[in-house]
Amino acid sequence: MAAILLKNISVGDVRRDLLIEGGIIKRIEAAGACSGWDLAGDLESMDCGGKAAVPGFVNMHVHAAMSLMRGVGEDMKFHDWLSHVWRLEEKIDPEFIYWGAKVACLEMIRTGTTAFNDQYWHSSETRRAAAEMGLRCALGYTLLDGFDERKAALEQARAEEDYELYGDCPVYVLSCHSIYTVSADTLCWAADFARRRGIPLHIHVSETRKEVEDCKAAHHGLSPVEYLDSLGFWGPDVIAGHCLWLSERDVRLLGDAGVTCVHNINSNTKLASGYRFLYNELRDAGANVCLGTDGCASSNNLDMLEAMKTAALVQKAWRDDPSALPIPELMQCASYNGAKALGIDAGRIREGALADIAIVDTDNSFFLSPAPFEANFVYSAHSDCIDSLICNGCFVMRHREVPGERGILDAARDVLRKICA
Amino acid sequence: MAAILLKNISVGDVRRDLLIEGGIIKRIEAAGACSGWDLAGDLESMDCGGKAAVPGFVNMHVHAAMSLMRGVGEDMKFHDWLSHVWRLEEKIDPEFIYWGAKVACLEMIRTGTTAFNDQYWHSSETRRAAAEMGLRCALGYTLLDGFDERKAALEQARAEEDYELYGDCPVYVLSCHSIYTVSADTLCWAADFARRRGIPLHIHVSETRKEVEDCKAAHHGLSPVEYLDSLGFWGPDVIAGHCLWLSERDVRLLGDAGVTCVHNINSNTKLASGYRFLYNELRDAGANVCLGTDGCASSNNLDMLEAMKTAALVQKAWRDDPSALPIPELMQCASYNGAKALGIDAGRIREGALADIAIVDTDNSFFLSPAPFEANFVYSAHSDCIDSLICNGCFVMRHREVPGERGILDAARDVLRKICA
Repeated sequence: MAAILLKNISVGDVRRDLLIEGGIIKRIEAAGACSGWDLAGDLESMDCGGKAAVPGFVNMHVHAAMSLMRGVGEDMKFHDWLSHVWRLEEKIDPEFIYWGAKVACLEMIRTGTTAFNDQYWHSSETRRAAAEMGLRCALGYTLLDGFDERKAALEQARAEEDYELYGDCPVYVLSCHSIYTVSADTLCWAADFARRRGIPLHIHVSETRKEVEDCKAAHHGLSPVEYLDSLGFWGPDVIAGHCLWLSERDVRLLGDAGVTCVHNINSNTKLASGYRFLYNELRDAGANVCLGTDGCASSNNLDMLEAMKTAALVQKAWRDDPSALPIPELMQCASYNGAKALGIDAGRIREGALADIAIVDTDNSFFLSPAPFEANFVYSAHSDCIDSLICNGCFVMRHREVPGERGILDAARDVLRKICA
Repeated sequence: MAAILLKNISVGDVRRDLLIEGGIIKRIEAAGACSGWDLAGDLESMDCGGKAAVPGFVNMHVHAAMSLMRGVGEDMKFHDWLSHVWRLEEKIDPEFIYWGAKVACLEMIRTGTTAFNDQYWHSSETRRAAAEMGLRCALGYTLLDGFDERKAALEQARAEEDYELYGDCPVYVLSCHSIYTVSADTLCWAADFARRRGIPLHIHVSETRKEVEDCKAAHHGLSPVEYLDSLGFWGPDVIAGHCLWLSERDVRLLGDAGVTCVHNINSNTKLASGYRFLYNELRDAGANVCLGTDGCASSNNLDMLEAMKTAALVQKAWRDDPSALPIPELMQCASYNGAKALGIDAGRIREGALADIAIVDTDNSFFLSPAPFEANFVYSAHSDCIDSLICNGCFVMRHREVPGERGILDAARDVLRKICA
């Protein structure tokens, strides 16, 4: 692994020289300082005048392979859309998932994401794709038993088997699809299994009003959050996607347990699931709020910068408060908070941290104004301002070129042709 | 002016050959047909395999020169923000406006816009900038008298003088800033002046709840729309920016008069002005609904594709209806409806129409799925998929290169340095 020297790069509006070695940010000093550094050996140097460094994004709720399912069930309500997706998923195989994940990684790289938390079938295919593309992924087996006792036993056995094979891959995350697809027995089994091994849990929670109403009807008036609380599911190791329909008590339970709550505004608005995400309340209660895009079948892309802007705009609008979800907190939600949930030292540009860095080209109209860099980055620019991306100390994109892009697109088209035939 | 041949370009999901001559779309036939055409003379041919043609966007509410005022008054409510902007505007001069408009045109070109309806001071500077950049603009004098009788007379005289100088430039539009900055006398004068000359009127209307409440308090309970109706202001020649806080009666008045109502979702949400734009109601009542970005001081960019996606997502979300603002209507709002309001035959790719065309690169992950092209274009892609742009039959961008870009950015930085000093 070659060392990387980023010369004269803007970090937090100050020009710096930045040295990356062994996957780690080794040195950050004033621009020009590198002339005095001892830089023998294998070194790639990049002149970064007109560029800025930001932490790579951490997309905390993805179904990567769905990159090949864009436009599926357009204009449908969540539960109709989900039935539609499930029918399609009967036709897909590991090859589809592998190439879907490759496309997803390509798109995440081009939009500045260095790590993602996935939930999908055949997760080893997604893990393989991410490893080849040089991205960090967090994933593992996804449990879905349909409240069938025999299937529950089978699912639990498969999860154990998957963990045997891949449990030592960083970051292994055990998923339960949701409370409306997974039995209480399997939810409890998963929580116990994950905690004995110190691995995070990932689940969809309170995504739609219907989910909450159905849960209350089925479980003596308990909301999904209360129901999961009654099963002992919650803890700081749980990553809960959506958390959109919450009572005050739900917010307190999630906050007290230090749950990671992932806001997926583009998916929620597009499916008309809801938009009043309780950002302030969850943050103040002690939850770890992150951002995600959800899968492309609902979102319809994996662009975290776009998700950030939409999240901020919608939050300001429904709260009738233009200062809601301010930029520094938004940046944290998009990188540092996610890294924290996954137990990786990323999401901040500082010495000793993992070198997961997006290099932003600021030499364009979007960064002309004297506003702070981060405000221009989120509100004005688009993800194509991300010139280069470093993950784990290696370039995964240089000047908008991602190795192997052409081959990935061609292979994905072949896979789609087969499915559509 | 050279003729342009676009070979094998996708139009509405069908491959075509498309000939542009004298600023007009001259011929559209099945791909391959051009081999039989008589194409002597000055011709630029572009092979458009992997590309699609869409109408250039028509941004119907812009303050172009504000491209140099991004990040001004971040996190402020509308009326505080506006006071802040007005203090800044005391420092700006025609040079600032010229270079601000150049930057705005550059950004509009890079994001696929071929025509825009502007409202700002020193409009001849913006007109000059747009002409140099090859874009269509609609603009003219902006009246603002602050309810001062002497200023009203002066403003009316200046408007007349401006019209004398520039009235024959296409498209001359007379602006009144708003009902809270312009007296009834001047509003009536403007409506009369414009109608005698057959030119459109442009005004901000019902942008904030405060504007409506203040109007009711000042004008015997009349809403801004009712108040303007009482002055005889409305007609199919009026372009009304925002129209966000409307009663049922307001919607009926706007619809009956066939007013062009411009929705600016990014500005409205960012300033927390509101988000419940009555798209269905206005459309059904007979209004001509268009989209705009507003100025960069509030929006914070001029990207119509971004504005389209946000508008669709927010409309679906607050209506609790995933089928709200469907793609074909959204595309019309973003181009054809605006062209119609400005009296230009653009916004549709068909023989005889003006050649204002964005050429979209579909050879990337965003267009992989078998979903209709327009769904992928709006929901998945970003404006950087716009490879080339033709306005009035001439290329204003070829393969992401805009002539003079470097010089514009440098000059704009100089102007900003002077203002900030």
